[in-house]
Amino acid sequence: MGKNITHKIIEKHLVSGSMVPGEEVGLRIDQTLTQDATGTMAWLQYEAIGIGRVRTDLSVSYVDHNTLQMGFRNPDDHRFLRTVAAKSGAVFSPAGTGICHQLHLENFAKPGATLIGSDSHTPTAGGIGAMAMGAGGLSVALAMAGEAYFIPMPKVVKVELTGELTGWAQGKDVILELLRLLTVKGGVGKVFEYAGPGVASLSVPDRATITNMGAELGATTSIFPSDETTRDFLTKMGRADDWTELVADADAEYDEVVTINLSDLEPMVAQPHMPDQVCKVKDLAGKKIDQVAIGSCTNSSYSDLKNTAQILAGHMTPPETDLMISPGSKQVLKMLSREGLIEPLLDAGARLLECSCGPCIGMGGSPVSAGVSVRTFNRNFEGRSGTQDGQVYLASAQTAAKLALDGEFTDPATWGPAPDRVSLPDDVPSIRDLFVFPPEDGSSVEVLRGPNIVALEDFDKLPETVEAKVLLKVGDNITTDHILPAGAQITALRSNIPAISQYIFSRVDEGFVSRMQEHGKGVILGGENYGQGSSREHAALGPRHLGVKAVVVKSLARIHRANLVNFGILPLLLVDPSDYDRLEEGVDLTIPASEITPGGTVNMVAGNGATVAVTNDLTEKELQIIQAGGLLNAVREGKS
Amino acid sequence: MGKNITHKIIEKHLVSGSMVPGEEVGLRIDQTLTQDATGTMAWLQYEAIGIGRVRTDLSVSYVDHNTLQMGFRNPDDHRFLRTVAAKSGAVFSPAGTGICHQLHLENFAKPGATLIGSDSHTPTAGGIGAMAMGAGGLSVALAMAGEAYFIPMPKVVKVELTGELTGWAQGKDVILELLRLLTVKGGVGKVFEYAGPGVASLSVPDRATITNMGAELGATTSIFPSDETTRDFLTKMGRADDWTELVADADAEYDEVVTINLSDLEPMVAQPHMPDQVCKVKDLAGKKIDQVAIGSCTNSSYSDLKNTAQILAGHMTPPETDLMISPGSKQVLKMLSREGLIEPLLDAGARLLECSCGPCIGMGGSPVSAGVSVRTFNRNFEGRSGTQDGQVYLASAQTAAKLALDGEFTDPATWGPAPDRVSLPDDVPSIRDLFVFPPEDGSSVEVLRGPNIVALEDFDKLPETVEAKVLLKVGDNITTDHILPAGAQITALRSNIPAISQYIFSRVDEGFVSRMQEHGKGVILGGENYGQGSSREHAALGPRHLGVKAVVVKSLARIHRANLVNFGILPLLLVDPSDYDRLEEGVDLTIPASEITPGGTVNMVAGNGATVAVTNDLTEKELQIIQAGGLLNAVREGKS
Repeated sequence: MGKNITHKIIEKHLVSGSMVPGEEVGLRIDQTLTQDATGTMAWLQYEAIGIGRVRTDLSVSYVDHNTLQMGFRNPDDHRFLRTVAAKSGAVFSPAGTGICHQLHLENFAKPGATLIGSDSHTPTAGGIGAMAMGAGGLSVALAMAGEAYFIPMPKVVKVELTGELTGWAQGKDVILELLRLLTVKGGVGKVFEYAGPGVASLSVPDRATITNMGAELGATTSIFPSDETTRDFLTKMGRADDWTELVADADAEYDEVVTINLSDLEPMVAQPHMPDQVCKVKDLAGKKIDQVAIGSCTNSSYSDLKNTAQILAGHMTPPETDLMISPGSKQVLKMLSREGLIEPLLDAGARLLECSCGPCIGMGGSPVSAGVSVRTFNRNFEGRSGTQDGQVYLASAQTAAKLALDGEFTDPATWGPAPDRVSLPDDVPSIRDLFVFPPEDGSSVEVLRGPNIVALEDFDKLPETVEAKVLLKVGDNITTDHILPAGAQITALRSNIPAISQYIFSRVDEGFVSRMQEHGKGVILGGENYGQGSSREHAALGPRHLGVKAVVVKSLARIHRANLVNFGILPLLLVDPSDYDRLEEGVDLTIPASEITPGGTVNMVAGNGATVAVTNDLTEKELQIIQAGGLLNAVREGKS
Repeated sequence: MGKNITHKIIEKHLVSGSMVPGEEVGLRIDQTLTQDATGTMAWLQYEAIGIGRVRTDLSVSYVDHNTLQMGFRNPDDHRFLRTVAAKSGAVFSPAGTGICHQLHLENFAKPGATLIGSDSHTPTAGGIGAMAMGAGGLSVALAMAGEAYFIPMPKVVKVELTGELTGWAQGKDVILELLRLLTVKGGVGKVFEYAGPGVASLSVPDRATITNMGAELGATTSIFPSDETTRDFLTKMGRADDWTELVADADAEYDEVVTINLSDLEPMVAQPHMPDQVCKVKDLAGKKIDQVAIGSCTNSSYSDLKNTAQILAGHMTPPETDLMISPGSKQVLKMLSREGLIEPLLDAGARLLECSCGPCIGMGGSPVSAGVSVRTFNRNFEGRSGTQDGQVYLASAQTAAKLALDGEFTDPATWGPAPDRVSLPDDVPSIRDLFVFPPEDGSSVEVLRGPNIVALEDFDKLPETVEAKVLLKVGDNITTDHILPAGAQITALRSNIPAISQYIFSRVDEGFVSRMQEHGKGVILGGENYGQGSSREHAALGPRHLGVKAVVVKSLARIHRANLVNFGILPLLLVDPSDYDRLEEGVDLTIPASEITPGGTVNMVAGNGATVAVTNDLTEKELQIIQAGGLLNAVREGKS
């Protein structure tokens, strides 16, 4: 029986478990990445483990999320990250060098390697055949310490690509089509592995856009074969030696198959406020656009921005439409500069922002009140833009650039010929010198901290019986942005759990934190796909700090579920989803925590005497971690 | 008797008064500029005046201060500014186009013209011989309405320049030397007019740096002759027709003379926390530098950044030193791009920020805790960087670039040859199309507002007797940054006086606002040079909203004094400065407001029965304005 790519990589990295979908597998991790928003906590955890030098092949600490540096906290965090990387043997990428996923793809990722990153869009590196997964910061810290990374063995979905992209259709439209078909929870527990005759026609940037935004399917990861296109990309990046061929066997088996005919695709957008609310651009013709933002780890490559410059050249955006461009890396910016492509951007009225995540995470660039914003990003959750009533649409760079000129949605049939698909030049400039490589011996490096960098607190063990009120009831598809908003002010507190916890659910229910403080403990009741979106573990750490003992939901998103486990919060699943309607905020719950077994069912008792059956999908090890009060406790006790 | 340039321009624009130093003169204003941080309020006031189309030759509304657009307030403000400009006949410069003073110098300012701007660094345009003054927003609004601008007739100081700059000395070092000699209050009531054989050797960017930072002397303005150098600059900007020769008569008289031999100058810096704490760079050799920031309206010209690129080319900053560059305008950025000068900046590790004020006003780019930051800006007030204990040094772009490479202060004697002084290329690219010019008829334009844009409140008349407690006592050289901090969060509230008033003196005394709210009214006691720095009228509007009736001080800075008058707060001067020591916070004051006459003395009665004599330097008209409750009331009553 032939193997698919996913199975080939997992088999090669398997440390424990068996490759049966749903069974826990432990994987050896070759590379890790962290970024600043999640990284300070990951590195504090790494320090707490006390392992010294990182034990991966390569660990890179990027600063890309909060590069605004408003006040001392943020630059202090960056200095901490720089010095702890030097001490620990990790590579450091300073603010402004670029976006972690773009940089990692260009400079470090390898076909066939395993990579975990404390960012949900780590699967970007799947565009060159890496098995790259988003993870909580603590999981990344443990991987840096040489520990395996544990996941439920995913199902592998073959995405059979036929045909070829035509006209204005782009890689972005492939993943938008998949989101339309499968929804934001359609990928839970699955790897999307791309195959078929259409693969060869897709450039690495197109592939990376697709694997990047596979995160919005809730997938474990997405992966493309490593082929001649990959070899050409790596060669031009000066990394020919990093290439290996990696393709599925001709008779490879898959758990599921989805087929997409690339020739059928046309420009699409995801409408407010979910990435799966996808429609065709033409269906929105006539709607005015206040803002267009091009950039982010999804669409900020050289080819995206070269096409953007080509589309904008000789034209101007209308005064009513603000256009912002954030290049993905200094390498991209250097290539644009060499080819004289910066002037056309400026002449069209575009604003050139720093090479960073920028508006994608609400770090500036908010739309006007109720403003329509077309963005090349991967998420359009309500309020994520920084404007609560902002109407955010997600599109390809080419679509966004054209719409910026038109100032409103228009029918692509009227757009004229699409710009040529872009190949990398033969002499791609290197930015390797901009990374700070660690000294051979980091023992003399002093790790510099600021007053906002607060050491981790110790958490108690799980009690035998949890008695707590439901202090918040929320609906389906709650994102980690709902749980903990981004933005410069709050993100600057990422290394200070007591301070950042004051913002937990602040945009959903202003009274939640004070209720938690009043009662000292509580339970959150949620619907389907609870905790989707960003991998920020603060969305588990903050609730844990406030005293949340359990979340009781219909279903959970993968990374957030892992974060709940890591910090000792019980992730319980309603056996009968209709019980959700019978439980209200304020009700007392008694949870027989000591009776919980992996996959078993227990009955909670609600204040009114009703019993509510809950189950779980925890492994034995995960349950032990929660009982120990979290993964750090478990590691210290030798239970993990 | 020959005339100096200042007298020539004032005479040509004189509407009322006589040109006797200290006497009030009314000037016809040819041009105005506003920026976003002060501009929303200025334009709300302009709307309140109800005049329709602007009556100046040219009014430009720039967006450069808060271009981060964190949340809806900020972009809503920008949209308001865009639409109200279109309706009112003003030119609009969108976010990211550049810094108002750099743009105005390059595109609009004219030799011999009068210009007032709602920004204290408006004197930048004095570099090409405009009489350009910073003013409160309301004064600018009135000038847009065709009203005269009233100032006390300034003394004219001749700054006789001899010799020629050599080596690493730059225009910045000329103004730093003047600040060293004269201090931050040495220029109050004065215009600094540059003359002498050294003038011809200074480029327009050097001249503009000098007149820009003349604001730090507390001067009314600074001005250079308009000569062949000016003609060449304007010609290369495509504005040869805007040039007129403007030089002092050979036998011109001046009130004072200062002589500076340019040949004697060497690289200097202003040390924390005042622009007049000037020393030589070499005196600080060995001090480590955490951050270098190049940009701002003082030093972000093509020549500054070309020199920066030349200095950085082929070198890298050390990882410990963060380098940020904010070009002054898209024109500058386009020139850098054309000449291939962006790559050397990036390769040196520099971060390329948007063309905006950026870190100069604490809009990002804060130093690390207690960090040493070398900046090419004009102000280094404590906390202005966003890091309260940041140690900010002010230097030229060339000095800053070299220090960024060294990572510490070094002796310029070790720097090797300085880069060549830069001339503009013959084919300077235009960015004229990036400005939004108003339609001929703006009557159909809808002015768009956001929920944070709050209409102006009406203020009461001054009571006959003011009875209020001293609710704050502060020392000398209090800046408008002390009174109202900048930064993205607070600046986003500039169009909402009730909201922004909650931050008045928040970094000086956290209890001030609540004390004001408790008592409903109060008096501020201050020392010398109260209200220096930025022109933000919110530093008067906020206190007025809170109920401040009078400020009692040893001396006042010019623009803030005018703002106090404009919003009906009594600016009283202690006759005996030692009374400052006898008055404490909390004491009750009775001020016989109805007995105050221009320049007269009245006795306040303090709670303990002591009498304290206070005087004023108000004109009859200014006193009427205060009695009416502010300038808008006075205009409505026909008293101004």
